Amino acid sequence: MLDYQAILEEIYESVTNVENKGEVAAYIPELANVPKDKFGINLQLITGENYSVGDSAEKLSIQSISKVLSLTKAFQLVGNKLWDRMDVEPSGNPFNHLSLLELENGIPRNPLINSGAIVVADILLTHLKNPKEDFLNFVREISHDHTICFNNKVAESERLTGYNNYAAANLLKSYGNLYNNVEDVLDFYFHQCSIAMDCKQLTNAFFVYANKGKCLKNRQHLTASQVKRINAIMLTCGFYDEAGEFAFEVGLPGKSGVGGGIVALLPQCFTIATWAPGLNPQGNSYLGMQALEQFTTKTQLSIF
Amino acid sequence: MLDYQAILEEIYESVTNVENKGEVAAYIPELANVPKDKFGINLQLITGENYSVGDSAEKLSIQSISKVLSLTKAFQLVGNKLWDRMDVEPSGNPFNHLSLLELENGIPRNPLINSGAIVVADILLTHLKNPKEDFLNFVREISHDHTICFNNKVAESERLTGYNNYAAANLLKSYGNLYNNVEDVLDFYFHQCSIAMDCKQLTNAFFVYANKGKCLKNRQHLTASQVKRINAIMLTCGFYDEAGEFAFEVGLPGKSGVGGGIVALLPQCFTIATWAPGLNPQGNSYLGMQALEQFTTKTQLSIF
Amino acid sequence: MLDYQAILEEIYESVTNVENKGEVAAYIPELANVPKDKFGINLQLITGENYSVGDSAEKLSIQSISKVLSLTKAFQLVGNKLWDRMDVEPSGNPFNHLSLLELENGIPRNPLINSGAIVVADILLTHLKNPKEDFLNFVREISHDHTICFNNKVAESERLTGYNNYAAANLLKSYGNLYNNVEDVLDFYFHQCSIAMDCKQLTNAFFVYANKGKCLKNRQHLTASQVKRINAIMLTCGFYDEAGEFAFEVGLPGKSGVGGGIVALLPQCFTIATWAPGLNPQGNSYLGMQALEQFTTKTQLSIF
Amino acid sequence: MLDYQAILEEIYESVTNVENKGEVAAYIPELANVPKDKFGINLQLITGENYSVGDSAEKLSIQSISKVLSLTKAFQLVGNKLWDRMDVEPSGNPFNHLSLLELENGIPRNPLINSGAIVVADILLTHLKNPKEDFLNFVREISHDHTICFNNKVAESERLTGYNNYAAANLLKSYGNLYNNVEDVLDFYFHQCSIAMDCKQLTNAFFVYANKGKCLKNRQHLTASQVKRINAIMLTCGFYDEAGEFAFEVGLPGKSGVGGGIVALLPQCFTIATWAPGLNPQGNSYLGMQALEQFTTKTQLSIF
Repeated sequence: MLDYQAILEEIYESVTNVENKGEVAAYIPELANVPKDKFGINLQLITGENYSVGDSAEKLSIQSISKVLSLTKAFQLVGNKLWDRMDVEPSGNPFNHLSLLELENGIPRNPLINSGAIVVADILLTHLKNPKEDFLNFVREISHDHTICFNNKVAESERLTGYNNYAAANLLKSYGNLYNNVEDVLDFYFHQCSIAMDCKQLTNAFFVYANKGKCLKNRQHLTASQVKRINAIMLTCGFYDEAGEFAFEVGLPGKSGVGGGIVALLPQCFTIATWAPGLNPQGNSYLGMQALEQFTTKTQLSIF
Repeated sequence: MLDYQAILEEIYESVTNVENKGEVAAYIPELANVPKDKFGINLQLITGENYSVGDSAEKLSIQSISKVLSLTKAFQLVGNKLWDRMDVEPSGNPFNHLSLLELENGIPRNPLINSGAIVVADILLTHLKNPKEDFLNFVREISHDHTICFNNKVAESERLTGYNNYAAANLLKSYGNLYNNVEDVLDFYFHQCSIAMDCKQLTNAFFVYANKGKCLKNRQHLTASQVKRINAIMLTCGFYDEAGEFAFEVGLPGKSGVGGGIVALLPQCFTIATWAPGLNPQGNSYLGMQALEQFTTKTQLSIF
Repeated sequence: MLDYQAILEEIYESVTNVENKGEVAAYIPELANVPKDKFGINLQLITGENYSVGDSAEKLSIQSISKVLSLTKAFQLVGNKLWDRMDVEPSGNPFNHLSLLELENGIPRNPLINSGAIVVADILLTHLKNPKEDFLNFVREISHDHTICFNNKVAESERLTGYNNYAAANLLKSYGNLYNNVEDVLDFYFHQCSIAMDCKQLTNAFFVYANKGKCLKNRQHLTASQVKRINAIMLTCGFYDEAGEFAFEVGLPGKSGVGGGIVALLPQCFTIATWAPGLNPQGNSYLGMQALEQFTTKTQLSIF
Repeated sequence: MLDYQAILEEIYESVTNVENKGEVAAYIPELANVPKDKFGINLQLITGENYSVGDSAEKLSIQSISKVLSLTKAFQLVGNKLWDRMDVEPSGNPFNHLSLLELENGIPRNPLINSGAIVVADILLTHLKNPKEDFLNFVREISHDHTICFNNKVAESERLTGYNNYAAANLLKSYGNLYNNVEDVLDFYFHQCSIAMDCKQLTNAFFVYANKGKCLKNRQHLTASQVKRINAIMLTCGFYDEAGEFAFEVGLPGKSGVGGGIVALLPQCFTIATWAPGLNPQGNSYLGMQALEQFTTKTQLSIF
């Protein structure tokens, strides 16, 4: 049997001693002040055991990690109609995401890049009665944690400086691939990104993807086939233009956020979340990537 | 001596009998209703003579033709500092103007594509006291015509549907290449595009570019060197991704607008304006291009 | 227990009745004559059982499937130095592979697109004594089948018409990322692509990737870590610009070739090969994709 | 009256004292050894006068300047059929010329970028009996100088290292836009580029473009309409991705070569050639650009 606690502690030791810790995302003012030496891991086994090290109980801004959750809700609501408005291919594009959108006539490459997630937000706005409240409740339910909240300051901070997201939303609108008002869609989008969760809450929330659609309380939220598809999208598209690198080094479906969080999972086995606010140039957590690479190398547990 | 009136009439005859007249721009609702068989030409010689055929005294929405006028005003105001914020190269890009902007880090290719003209509008907003009023007065002055006005309905129509321009402005903002508020810049921009002028007023306004910077009333508005540079930009960048084609077929500096207007000129010789609302797929007036090709072929007058 | 033979037969029944069977690759003259209603599957379980339907014992031209085998050999020979000369990211590029190569200064996106595989061929040429012979022997060994051969006619056919590969090789050379002579590298490359194998031989050859590096005869050819990495590359890059779609629909690492073959695998569980020469517009076997989607849906066996 | 000799001498003085003289093209070994402080100008007036300064009588490798001459010959031979195989739009592309070719399905943007000139060479190969000899004779005739020759060493040097041209030719071939053999087309192309001429010979050769198609000996080689079109192409496409800059600063149709030569002209007025081997990052002669800017500023002679 693997001694998971010992493995997490080894990783903690090794990773917190690394000198280059990346750079905290500066473009969202509210995130720029998070100390860059924060580091935590939470590991949730499918069998119920849970292990932690470091700052795993501190709240982080989940940011793009929320895209998996909004995709999940939209997939529940509209099923495969989702794919009329976006594709499932990796963007493979380090430099210019609006270019691709323009080249492909307003159809985002996948639901985990900004333009795709904005279309997903548009769909939720159309189908949910009280969009922000209903979405938050969905996140609370699959996580079994009713303390999870938006951080309105972070949402407001992004609204004031998120010009690139305004550009994407307007471009989508110009192609007829945004049905609601730009301001309304982005208000929802900035709120979903602002959700604050700690590593434990993240491994709880993502338990459904490791457990064929059933949450920790054994309730079925998604079919096995939906879970397979969402995991596939996480693997091929979850890390911006570093998706190939993450698959290659870590070998797990997962999703990162510019708040420094990463959550990943091995179907039928575990979910794991790391938090380290310093980012590499591709926008993924510098130490989180290293920690997860060490974890799958030490445990030899990966989908490959 | 050339019989200009006879030549214009021959062209009128030939061009109004063409079957394919192109398509009226549908994406600006207020323009969509202009009858597509309108056609007019005005020719203003440097020596003072003026010739007309067809609907040359009817008002058209000058749209992108205004970009030459706003560039001129901005060039007067800030001189070569202009080129810190945009380039002077043809975009050569039929398919995706935001892509280039992204690839080139928010520096528009030239002042006559939308993104470049939006930066020019931003500069005018910064340097003019009453931007809309002052700019309109400038246009009136070089045209010697104080009846020239904005069409507020057209401006409002573009504000409500100009998502692509909102995308461009927000993208510029995200790169730090827009100093004023997006809404304010676009309000100015949509107004400048909405100016209504007839072909005669257009040949008046562009007289400065044919006359080394002096207007019809012989007042110096630009230096000869500034005029040379603006004419060069018109030639290489004035017709979207058909700039090469227009140089090749017509051989004059000029500028087109989606309202169906084209104005062109031969330094020291003449300015000419055509109006035909149907556009070719590149967004230039279908009949206007043909009329100007015939004009330079018949008269053998071109810069080449 | 799953009745694999029954499942394969169901799939056979369903898939051979589909009307649209795709189009046989016309650009390689020698392949253009293969009848498009050929269809076969071979399934090799890790536990030793083997199942077949249809034309699974007929030879097909493995084409791009060979890129996984050449990558494997090069990885054995030079280890992680490989990644100095190419990346591991999906290309995400439906339209123009040379563009990316140019944009990224001669570093191919991954070893499974043509430009990457040409660099791999260059590496093998440098490190193998008798490159073609040694590589063929490697394929024979991991497959335990010494009847496997090049098809010289196919190789010659590609040499005469493979202008796009000549373009890629010369572009790589212009960036200094090809050390050997263009003709020599492409001669090797066209031969590796011309290898003829049937579905059974393909599941044998790919057994190492399902069995932590050990072949059917239990000999260790690769480390577990190397296998994990190659499987990750297959998943993110194995199907041109349809890699996301294959992960999404099928959920297995795999590789396709324009000869109509696909081979895929579930670590610790099975390897499976399909053959159906008709291709979809993305260049992957039309019926093969469907058969594998049905297989993972019916068996609920995927990496996700 | 302008004192042209004095103006040329002023420019000589000013330009030879500039510190940054650019870099000699290193990628063609035979050109890499040319001393970078060479500098010469020749000016040929339409009225017959001729003026020189500096190294204007030394031979330079005309390189891409030859593209105007080959275009002229092809235009004579096939007329407007030329435009079925290439376009007349500026490429506007600093970074990757093969990308555009791929994106536009093998149709080069214009005849003055490499891919376009290779198609022109292909046309000449098809239509000339003894292609190299016939083309050289054409150049000798319009220049009235039968001493003009290929430099076989330069041609051979390019053949051995011109991988990018091989890539372009093979890519054209893959799109069916090259009818002759790649080797044969490039052999012709490398020879046309290798022609050695001095500044005086260049102003002679380009006299036809300033004189409505008539050469110095008053023989008609091109129609006025053909001349207009070729001049238009020079203006919009003659300086790679600096065409806009050259039009803006200099305001003359012209063409540069990586041998450091530039030739430009004002219709009905003059032809001018400069030589300075150091290139700017865009591949145009660093001092030549400056000299021509000074010339049109001092003389106020430009097409604008």
